[in-house]
Amino acid sequence: MKINGRHYRTIWVAADGWAVEIIDQTLLPHAFETTRLETTQDAARAIKTMQVRGAPLIGATAAYGVCLALREDASDGSLTKAIDFLAEQRPTAINLRWALEEMRKAVGGSAPAVRVAAAYARAAQLCDEDVETCRRIGEHGLAIITSIASGKPNGEPVNILTHCNAGWIACVDWGTATSPIYQAHDAGIPVHVWVDETRPRNQGASLTAFELGRHGVPHTIVVDNAGGHLMQHGAVDMCIVGTDRTTANGDVCNKIGTYLKALAAKDNGVPFYVALPYSTIDWDLDDGMTIPIEERSPDEVLKMPGRLPDGSVVTVEIAAPGSPAGNPAFDVTPARLVTGLITERGVADASRAGLLELYPERG
Amino acid sequence: MKINGRHYRTIWVAADGWAVEIIDQTLLPHAFETTRLETTQDAARAIKTMQVRGAPLIGATAAYGVCLALREDASDGSLTKAIDFLAEQRPTAINLRWALEEMRKAVGGSAPAVRVAAAYARAAQLCDEDVETCRRIGEHGLAIITSIASGKPNGEPVNILTHCNAGWIACVDWGTATSPIYQAHDAGIPVHVWVDETRPRNQGASLTAFELGRHGVPHTIVVDNAGGHLMQHGAVDMCIVGTDRTTANGDVCNKIGTYLKALAAKDNGVPFYVALPYSTIDWDLDDGMTIPIEERSPDEVLKMPGRLPDGSVVTVEIAAPGSPAGNPAFDVTPARLVTGLITERGVADASRAGLLELYPERG
Repeated sequence: MKINGRHYRTIWVAADGWAVEIIDQTLLPHAFETTRLETTQDAARAIKTMQVRGAPLIGATAAYGVCLALREDASDGSLTKAIDFLAEQRPTAINLRWALEEMRKAVGGSAPAVRVAAAYARAAQLCDEDVETCRRIGEHGLAIITSIASGKPNGEPVNILTHCNAGWIACVDWGTATSPIYQAHDAGIPVHVWVDETRPRNQGASLTAFELGRHGVPHTIVVDNAGGHLMQHGAVDMCIVGTDRTTANGDVCNKIGTYLKALAAKDNGVPFYVALPYSTIDWDLDDGMTIPIEERSPDEVLKMPGRLPDGSVVTVEIAAPGSPAGNPAFDVTPARLVTGLITERGVADASRAGLLELYPERG
Repeated sequence: MKINGRHYRTIWVAADGWAVEIIDQTLLPHAFETTRLETTQDAARAIKTMQVRGAPLIGATAAYGVCLALREDASDGSLTKAIDFLAEQRPTAINLRWALEEMRKAVGGSAPAVRVAAAYARAAQLCDEDVETCRRIGEHGLAIITSIASGKPNGEPVNILTHCNAGWIACVDWGTATSPIYQAHDAGIPVHVWVDETRPRNQGASLTAFELGRHGVPHTIVVDNAGGHLMQHGAVDMCIVGTDRTTANGDVCNKIGTYLKALAAKDNGVPFYVALPYSTIDWDLDDGMTIPIEERSPDEVLKMPGRLPDGSVVTVEIAAPGSPAGNPAFDVTPARLVTGLITERGVADASRAGLLELYPERG
């Protein structure tokens, strides 16, 4: 998508044809800087320090990390070492391991002499595939937005509430929840996004607001407390959120607070959609309440980074000194509260039957 | 209640018998300091700058402001001037005007020679009345907590979720939503409070956590997003919140985000109580959705005050630069989501009929 008029992906091969460039997301939203990865170590550090984040982008960065390793040494030993080293940077990121295995498959059988070219080709393909998946999610979501827009008087904007960041900067381009929004905006359909701040890590206020703003999509940041009130007063036409894992019966595990918005949507007749690629569906689980929920550091609740007037970034303590904090990172929205699952194959009912209609090969 | 073992009210007459002392709430939670009011101007400034906050405490401070004026000049002119001056410090605070009219009634008919004593007596009485109202709310709420505690195995604590600050530091003592909690704790019933952070002004993380912590009540700060997840997992036995205005049919206007917690409570069978004094009931309104909701400054969403490691307090910008914010301050929880209204007269069903059982004189 665009940053101030110029198109970006979150990762790309530099003009010299071999180095890899990324947006340094640790600096967002306070500064926008790109950074150059020239070695496997650079790629590993980018993953480890969260200069890149979001499952698809982590995978893409790891894929290019393999390319950079092979460029220095295309031997079998180098390939194995690079894959093992990159995989351990974020041990729980499934997508990271998947992308690395794809790279192994793509180049492991080739003679070392042609491995570098094969690796760069496969990494580029992985990126393109992610872009295409997100683009298709957007296409299916666009149909929903178009339908709502047609019922709005006088070209009033379609008001869409989103939670956390399921945006293009977590993917390679388009994003998942944001893809329908960008496609509607680019097609000239007036949209306005209510951006949930998304405490404690503020991914809404810092990342979603950043990317919508730079692309030019009208939006308003609200605290996580506000969405119910907005829905009660007819200010929200639909919700679209992403998901970290969706069970085969349609229960949606996503950033903490998603469930509260889904309850408010149900109470006010506002459609609540979840945008997700096929890879996010956990076909082995039929009850979202069994998903273990990560408890993160209390510091995320008790402290907050921000900009001082001089532009420097500091972290301040914001709560009563000595009070403890709890910090569950995700919650589960039961399928009964979900209007539809927007995947790259279409919009499914949030149920096993609904998902099997789109993915009959899983039946 | 207690601050580190010593009992405090939020306002008291100093040891010299005439000056008035308060806790400077603008410094909370980062520092605890009391300050001395010696003139009407001091009292007015305390109200205006929010050194005191919360309807009952604002009223009490204004009442003592009249005392301080009369001490310097007990004439009719001085009385009128003091009342007018104090009233304009927070023009929309109904309780402020009410307390000032009570003072006018109490001393206006007396000879100037006895006015000072009459004024101090009435101001003290207003404070005592507020304490008694809150104490009774606590008594009725305590019965609910006791009943829940009796059903918990092995003396496990009763887990209570609250939102915003309806605590003793907004009143003279006890608080409204916190009064049942303090009474249970003081009676040896194990309680644990989930304290909603309460964005954007963080009254939960800064004020409720402060007062519970200093009194020794076990509590955990959570972001506003977390309550639904906690309720889904059985970690909340009841909710108690305060209210700024409750309509005659039982709709509850309170801090933004209250509605979302009430929805989650309903969805999980968790009782949702509202604690309120009689003066908060708006007998003229039968539909909470008609209450105009104050839209406050976007800066409350986009900026955050906090402590640096050296103890100094600064304000940082926390969102994407240039993104706008919306900031509705309150929302309305429909009566259908409210288990009961805990007033100084008992626990009422959240309905006109329920309220009229406790307040037959309004029938």
